[in-house]
Amino acid sequence: MEKIVTFGELMLRLMPQGYNRIVQANNFNAEFGGAEANVAVSLANFGMDSLYVSRLPQNQIGQSALNSLRRFGVNTEFIARSADDRMGIYFLEKGAAQRSSLCIYDRKNSAFANSSPGDYDWNKILRGALWLHVTGITPALSKNCAFITLEACRKAKERGITVSCDLNYRSKLWTKQKARAFMKLLAPSVDVLITNEDDALNVFGIKTEHTDTESGVIDAAAYKKTMLALHKKFAFKKIAVTLRQSESASVNSWSGIYFDGKDFWTSRRYKINLVERVGSGDAFAAGLIYALCKKFSGQKTVDFAAAASALKHSIDGDYNMVSAEEVMQLAASAGTGRIKR
Amino acid sequence: MEKIVTFGELMLRLMPQGYNRIVQANNFNAEFGGAEANVAVSLANFGMDSLYVSRLPQNQIGQSALNSLRRFGVNTEFIARSADDRMGIYFLEKGAAQRSSLCIYDRKNSAFANSSPGDYDWNKILRGALWLHVTGITPALSKNCAFITLEACRKAKERGITVSCDLNYRSKLWTKQKARAFMKLLAPSVDVLITNEDDALNVFGIKTEHTDTESGVIDAAAYKKTMLALHKKFAFKKIAVTLRQSESASVNSWSGIYFDGKDFWTSRRYKINLVERVGSGDAFAAGLIYALCKKFSGQKTVDFAAAASALKHSIDGDYNMVSAEEVMQLAASAGTGRIKR
Amino acid sequence: MEKIVTFGELMLRLMPQGYNRIVQANNFNAEFGGAEANVAVSLANFGMDSLYVSRLPQNQIGQSALNSLRRFGVNTEFIARSADDRMGIYFLEKGAAQRSSLCIYDRKNSAFANSSPGDYDWNKILRGALWLHVTGITPALSKNCAFITLEACRKAKERGITVSCDLNYRSKLWTKQKARAFMKLLAPSVDVLITNEDDALNVFGIKTEHTDTESGVIDAAAYKKTMLALHKKFAFKKIAVTLRQSESASVNSWSGIYFDGKDFWTSRRYKINLVERVGSGDAFAAGLIYALCKKFSGQKTVDFAAAASALKHSIDGDYNMVSAEEVMQLAASAGTGRIKR
Amino acid sequence: MEKIVTFGELMLRLMPQGYNRIVQANNFNAEFGGAEANVAVSLANFGMDSLYVSRLPQNQIGQSALNSLRRFGVNTEFIARSADDRMGIYFLEKGAAQRSSLCIYDRKNSAFANSSPGDYDWNKILRGALWLHVTGITPALSKNCAFITLEACRKAKERGITVSCDLNYRSKLWTKQKARAFMKLLAPSVDVLITNEDDALNVFGIKTEHTDTESGVIDAAAYKKTMLALHKKFAFKKIAVTLRQSESASVNSWSGIYFDGKDFWTSRRYKINLVERVGSGDAFAAGLIYALCKKFSGQKTVDFAAAASALKHSIDGDYNMVSAEEVMQLAASAGTGRIKR
Amino acid sequence: MEKIVTFGELMLRLMPQGYNRIVQANNFNAEFGGAEANVAVSLANFGMDSLYVSRLPQNQIGQSALNSLRRFGVNTEFIARSADDRMGIYFLEKGAAQRSSLCIYDRKNSAFANSSPGDYDWNKILRGALWLHVTGITPALSKNCAFITLEACRKAKERGITVSCDLNYRSKLWTKQKARAFMKLLAPSVDVLITNEDDALNVFGIKTEHTDTESGVIDAAAYKKTMLALHKKFAFKKIAVTLRQSESASVNSWSGIYFDGKDFWTSRRYKINLVERVGSGDAFAAGLIYALCKKFSGQKTVDFAAAASALKHSIDGDYNMVSAEEVMQLAASAGTGRIKR
Amino acid sequence: MEKIVTFGELMLRLMPQGYNRIVQANNFNAEFGGAEANVAVSLANFGMDSLYVSRLPQNQIGQSALNSLRRFGVNTEFIARSADDRMGIYFLEKGAAQRSSLCIYDRKNSAFANSSPGDYDWNKILRGALWLHVTGITPALSKNCAFITLEACRKAKERGITVSCDLNYRSKLWTKQKARAFMKLLAPSVDVLITNEDDALNVFGIKTEHTDTESGVIDAAAYKKTMLALHKKFAFKKIAVTLRQSESASVNSWSGIYFDGKDFWTSRRYKINLVERVGSGDAFAAGLIYALCKKFSGQKTVDFAAAASALKHSIDGDYNMVSAEEVMQLAASAGTGRIKR
Repeated sequence: MEKIVTFGELMLRLMPQGYNRIVQANNFNAEFGGAEANVAVSLANFGMDSLYVSRLPQNQIGQSALNSLRRFGVNTEFIARSADDRMGIYFLEKGAAQRSSLCIYDRKNSAFANSSPGDYDWNKILRGALWLHVTGITPALSKNCAFITLEACRKAKERGITVSCDLNYRSKLWTKQKARAFMKLLAPSVDVLITNEDDALNVFGIKTEHTDTESGVIDAAAYKKTMLALHKKFAFKKIAVTLRQSESASVNSWSGIYFDGKDFWTSRRYKINLVERVGSGDAFAAGLIYALCKKFSGQKTVDFAAAASALKHSIDGDYNMVSAEEVMQLAASAGTGRIKR
Repeated sequence: MEKIVTFGELMLRLMPQGYNRIVQANNFNAEFGGAEANVAVSLANFGMDSLYVSRLPQNQIGQSALNSLRRFGVNTEFIARSADDRMGIYFLEKGAAQRSSLCIYDRKNSAFANSSPGDYDWNKILRGALWLHVTGITPALSKNCAFITLEACRKAKERGITVSCDLNYRSKLWTKQKARAFMKLLAPSVDVLITNEDDALNVFGIKTEHTDTESGVIDAAAYKKTMLALHKKFAFKKIAVTLRQSESASVNSWSGIYFDGKDFWTSRRYKINLVERVGSGDAFAAGLIYALCKKFSGQKTVDFAAAASALKHSIDGDYNMVSAEEVMQLAASAGTGRIKR
Repeated sequence: MEKIVTFGELMLRLMPQGYNRIVQANNFNAEFGGAEANVAVSLANFGMDSLYVSRLPQNQIGQSALNSLRRFGVNTEFIARSADDRMGIYFLEKGAAQRSSLCIYDRKNSAFANSSPGDYDWNKILRGALWLHVTGITPALSKNCAFITLEACRKAKERGITVSCDLNYRSKLWTKQKARAFMKLLAPSVDVLITNEDDALNVFGIKTEHTDTESGVIDAAAYKKTMLALHKKFAFKKIAVTLRQSESASVNSWSGIYFDGKDFWTSRRYKINLVERVGSGDAFAAGLIYALCKKFSGQKTVDFAAAASALKHSIDGDYNMVSAEEVMQLAASAGTGRIKR
Repeated sequence: MEKIVTFGELMLRLMPQGYNRIVQANNFNAEFGGAEANVAVSLANFGMDSLYVSRLPQNQIGQSALNSLRRFGVNTEFIARSADDRMGIYFLEKGAAQRSSLCIYDRKNSAFANSSPGDYDWNKILRGALWLHVTGITPALSKNCAFITLEACRKAKERGITVSCDLNYRSKLWTKQKARAFMKLLAPSVDVLITNEDDALNVFGIKTEHTDTESGVIDAAAYKKTMLALHKKFAFKKIAVTLRQSESASVNSWSGIYFDGKDFWTSRRYKINLVERVGSGDAFAAGLIYALCKKFSGQKTVDFAAAASALKHSIDGDYNMVSAEEVMQLAASAGTGRIKR
Repeated sequence: MEKIVTFGELMLRLMPQGYNRIVQANNFNAEFGGAEANVAVSLANFGMDSLYVSRLPQNQIGQSALNSLRRFGVNTEFIARSADDRMGIYFLEKGAAQRSSLCIYDRKNSAFANSSPGDYDWNKILRGALWLHVTGITPALSKNCAFITLEACRKAKERGITVSCDLNYRSKLWTKQKARAFMKLLAPSVDVLITNEDDALNVFGIKTEHTDTESGVIDAAAYKKTMLALHKKFAFKKIAVTLRQSESASVNSWSGIYFDGKDFWTSRRYKINLVERVGSGDAFAAGLIYALCKKFSGQKTVDFAAAASALKHSIDGDYNMVSAEEVMQLAASAGTGRIKR
Repeated sequence: MEKIVTFGELMLRLMPQGYNRIVQANNFNAEFGGAEANVAVSLANFGMDSLYVSRLPQNQIGQSALNSLRRFGVNTEFIARSADDRMGIYFLEKGAAQRSSLCIYDRKNSAFANSSPGDYDWNKILRGALWLHVTGITPALSKNCAFITLEACRKAKERGITVSCDLNYRSKLWTKQKARAFMKLLAPSVDVLITNEDDALNVFGIKTEHTDTESGVIDAAAYKKTMLALHKKFAFKKIAVTLRQSESASVNSWSGIYFDGKDFWTSRRYKINLVERVGSGDAFAAGLIYALCKKFSGQKTVDFAAAASALKHSIDGDYNMVSAEEVMQLAASAGTGRIKR
């Protein structure tokens, strides 16, 4: 099995049931998630040897978080534990119709944000790894987290391990300026970039023309221009972007474009009645990594990533609970949801 | 803060979970609602000094009802309590697809229907008020309720307090003839009328041509004619109507038209995947009252009312749990439900 | 009241709540269902004297199953009980968007599959009956079940009782070859055949041209050809087919065609935002049987069956919880789901 | 099977989950119950031919009530339906520790209270019956209900059908004076009286000495004196009393005494950690009726009634969900709750 | 109405359902609580003019917290709001049998802990107040919180407002040394001290002899000695202590002693099957404050406080949901939990 | 970490919520359990290297079962998967008061019962193991299961791995005669026997005098006699027995005796208000194995095992969710359930 390493924060995720607003809530579904952990679980569900690196508090909440990873087969051996720090939390209120989802972060001073370089022995962690995946969220959490991200990617690069990065710009965590400065430092260590048009603009200042995701106008040609610009300026070998059109918080369209350094490959566009959209970008990243590890063709690669991500929209929680077989079935079918009996 | 007075019945609302039919139900969500209380809560959520006038039983059910109002900041100081009477109840079964929602009233002999004029000291209640809001439901409940409604509106009118009335014709409570007779009495005290094409026809006998809400044909011009007719015949200063097109119990379109006595202002039309439609008319009324109190322009007024009401469709329960800021954001945006992170 | 007999297996149905996948589930909704029992309950809800014939274990699970039928007025007097055998179970995972529903059968060695001919006294059971309904699932369960199905239909035919059969081919239970062989034996005893284009192909090898339900292409003329072919080859007096177009697991279109041996009658096509699709075929069958018992016209027959079935899509669980009045209201209206208050 | 007729009101019972108080509740468990219906369901669960006579509204709530009886095998053929009236409701808040359970009646003007004599054809209803059971609640509901109770008992008496009456005095429904006056009229038609020391005092003014159920002092000899007094004064042939000692709302002791007109028979005393105490008296009555129908010995009769009732304390809801076999097992064992595996 | 001011932190309280451990939990009941807020809500439920002073984040979680107070009639006008800070959280795992309850604090850097003196205008807050209540938790949260507590008590003292303090020593928040130092500073401003034997020892170093709450040995005389010592050393005018004997996490005994500066008054001892023990000390404090405001006799005072607190053990959540009438009924009765019907 | 191997069946466990009976249930909690898996999870929670050997179906139910083990850190590498077979199921109805818990097995033809010797490579599995644990349930499931149990224990014995066996006689699975015959074959390979007085009698025909667990009479001396007899007759080196006294299904007493071949060691007796008793024997076995692996003294061994098991009674589900530290805290304390704050 291919060993894939992901590094990032795992949070407790608290969400009112159904479409309740937080002010109506009498209880919260308690799940765990985070952009990188979502990728790690997805890869484990695809059958990869998925190793997740993070830091969690040494209490029952931290233990539950760790258990949620083990449950789906993620290797948790290199998760550091902290005696004192707290668990990062995010509150999620699921949107519907014209009401957007709402996300309240309560992740400051978490066990992960308080990581120090000594918590992670990258020489051991990266031994035998094929791939390292990080996102733009981790460096936004603390100076140490930024330092460790850089260190991990550079060490991976040195060893010939493929490094992927999902830009995932979070305006609640840092400024565009800081994000840009960091990403320029990181770029030389990154082989595969995953982003969308907003983050390309926010982080790298590259605008995708003729595109207004709010109003639903999407120009595939303009996306390719953006991808080419990223390729030229930062020498990312491979780039993948996701294209979301929101009719409302209940109905979206979703597709992906993949650039292998030479050609562009575009997936089918899925029209989706949403169960939940959180984690769909991470599901795309995991699908892409899986497809590239398995050396799928360009078309099959973007089809697998888009199908994995389309399925995530039908699943509650941060984690994408689908097998590689299910993704391939969707990629190969019309996606109309008939039952087999 | 602007003081707004609303007067009406607050009921216990019992609804099976999800889309269960009543005959499948093993428990009921217990919430509280009623056309006027919904307006009162909505106004409190917008930050107004919202005072609700009603009558509730002096038992734990009545107390829970009162608590549901206090929870959202409604002033309950003038709610009369009855030692003997019961709480009005309505059972709601949420529709989906081609199955309509079902509403079973069990509100006879409620503490509110048994109100007597002495329960309400309008001189005290209206002191310092800017606005009084009533609906066509209250006079349908009992002779006393009709009398008190009339009394309250006339006293308000005398003091220069703006009076609004939402027609809200309920065929399960009284006949068209009785509704029409009462409304003719009330009309001279009403400044702002809120209605839709069905109630204009049911109560005032004014038909909106070329419109069949069942089949989805809506002719905005015809609505304006209806509004003009109401304006001329009853001298309502301002009139607002809501326009619903039902594709099914799951998907609706929704918009509003506002007439300020001179011009017509039409809102955007929202295509809505419904979470719940109960209370959307009340949300529109509250939005309208708020906008008029804040002296918004005609366009901004109808936009605010329509956006408030569109948001209500995404929220379970009778009460509209949105802030004025959220309404304004929707009115100003494309309404596509993107998450801010 | 018309006495209608149905014969088949009733299973415990276990489904995770909401759209949870089985691997996410911490509890299961416990309901009961099965193609024939669904028809029996639907008919009882329409006010028919519905008698259900089956075999259930003599334990608390079996008792709960039996109670679920009594609750809705089904006559359970001829349900045999088994001291040792188990209850058949099926696990259902509800699909959404591009993710299909998943069905795991755990019905081997059930009390019903282990039926022996002596468990059912058809002379008593059929006394006074107007109709007998069976499906293609029962003969697939065991040799005895196939034998008993044949025996029951033949005895009914002898007595002039109308016999209907819903093909309901289940690839997880038997092969196409076995299904075809059995159905050829059964055909002479069947008056009314209910099927769709897939089962016509699977069981009788009759292909409906120009139709690809996956991609949404449906050619009504081709369906009629298929129906004519079935009519000619097997002498079914009446044939009804259902036409499903799946946009996704969340949105379907649905209609029916009925052939009375002379003319074809086509229902309206419903566009449906699904609550649940399991049991919709059974709801169609029950609607058809009801309409034919009541001697509705051809058009009214197919309209009633299609409307019954459209409503089932809005209801959780296997059983169709609607009255004949509700079905007729939908058949006669635009199906836009307005509330009556 | 012995045919037993019971007559009384069936109510919708709404209870917050767990030990929540009503003011904390966000939803209510929706069940059905009533003293007489509880007896009817219990008898059906014991395998008797249990026929329940009542009047329910012709809406979905009334239908659910009726379904709850059918589910457990009660014959509902003589339940009258009312087009207009409402369902009687009671709200129950479950007590614990030092906090008593709380019961709020909302049963005025119910379909049952509005019964008229013409709703029930006692000649048909009583045909073939062995037993008629009524309680002191029904005559407290309305004049008509009192009249019908008397009529039913007299007709039963005339036909040699055994009549039992559980005093069940409800101070929230009528006064002691009215109860006493009615019960004196009814007494000559009653063969079997079921009561406790409080109701003997409230209704017949017969005080049980040396007994203070609040403080836990219970003197069996004094109970027997009370029973003898009732026997002498009103000529009840058989009398059974229940003895409850409340340590708290969580822990009770419970036993019964049965007088067959000659001898007294005392059951074991059960120490009970309560799941729910509502319906335990009805479970005792049903156990007594069953035992007397089966002509058990005096000792076995009181043991069966007490064991049935002890088991009810372990079951949520009004209905006693136990079989005659389970009751006999408890009566014959130490009641220590070991699992059989 | 008597105006009572309380000052302290309100936290989000997250508890797995039933007796689930945190590592088993899939969702958390979301409630709000905190020692001082619990007193404030209890007093509002008793009908007092209860004003709660705190600081909450300006997001939806903070709004829900504030709403939970308004719902029960607490005056929230002086609750400061913070744009940036987080909500304090505590996770609670309910114990049973031999397993203790578990409490995980996640309250560092909360909006309340980050209070600054300028957030509270004590001149306004204390205007017209009869009483100020604080606890030993607040000064343990931050230097500012300690400073503000001292300031508030001193200002109250100056104005002749009665000041009560519940020691509530929390070893997870500060050391005994710090607690002692602070309490010595505060003592001169405190009129009424509420404590138990553990906190008297932890904070003031006064040991209650012959008492081992673990093994269940309690010596009332020794408690009185402790109270006398506290009275002499720190000049508290009035002192109340609670006495808990734990048989297990499921069964406790509970009573109180009140010293009015002259005499000792002892309550009944309640044997309690626990629903929840969190907040029972706060319920005692609220009962004591109410009784003293109402100038009850010494015996009635301790009886009211103990009964209020006994009732709290039967109620889930931090808040004591009982009226003064219910408390008085328990204090006057045997507490055996009979239903009134 | 010590490597402990356990071998047995893991079942899907379906239980109605709370104290609902199966006939009342609308959903089931879905958990996983089985005597041996319970030991494996308990040992993993104690921090041991716990390896579980079993066979599960290759579908989503089997996957969920496997995930439930991984979640708590059990090594699942040697769990065989079956393409066709079903998951064993057991239905559990939780008893209360005088009502016993009810267990319905539906485990015939499960993937595990259909195991063949080739499914398990004991040479690999036992490599490096310190201990092998089996129970008397596995050999009762099928001939193959009996054969494999014997094979595994013999191979372990040969390699000097300690073998423990919990008799766990299940009358629903096999006869006493068959159990006795098998256990005589197995005995020479067993080092540590775990049992209670019932199973000693059922399997080995050794009666414990003066003991009637139903009536609560327990004579520790007689238990020791039984243990000595087992020691002499079958040469078990170490024997541990559990002693349960049932006051009711809600309140039990529980203790243990351990015989190390020379001396007897008796634990404290816990009086327990039950949350759930299923799995308490398994928790005792796991505690014993842990203590013996850690070479605790005789007294500490039986104290640890009894405390582990006492804690299990407070936890829902089959698995004992406690750490070794929690067990030691209880063993060292009074077990009165105080909260640490």
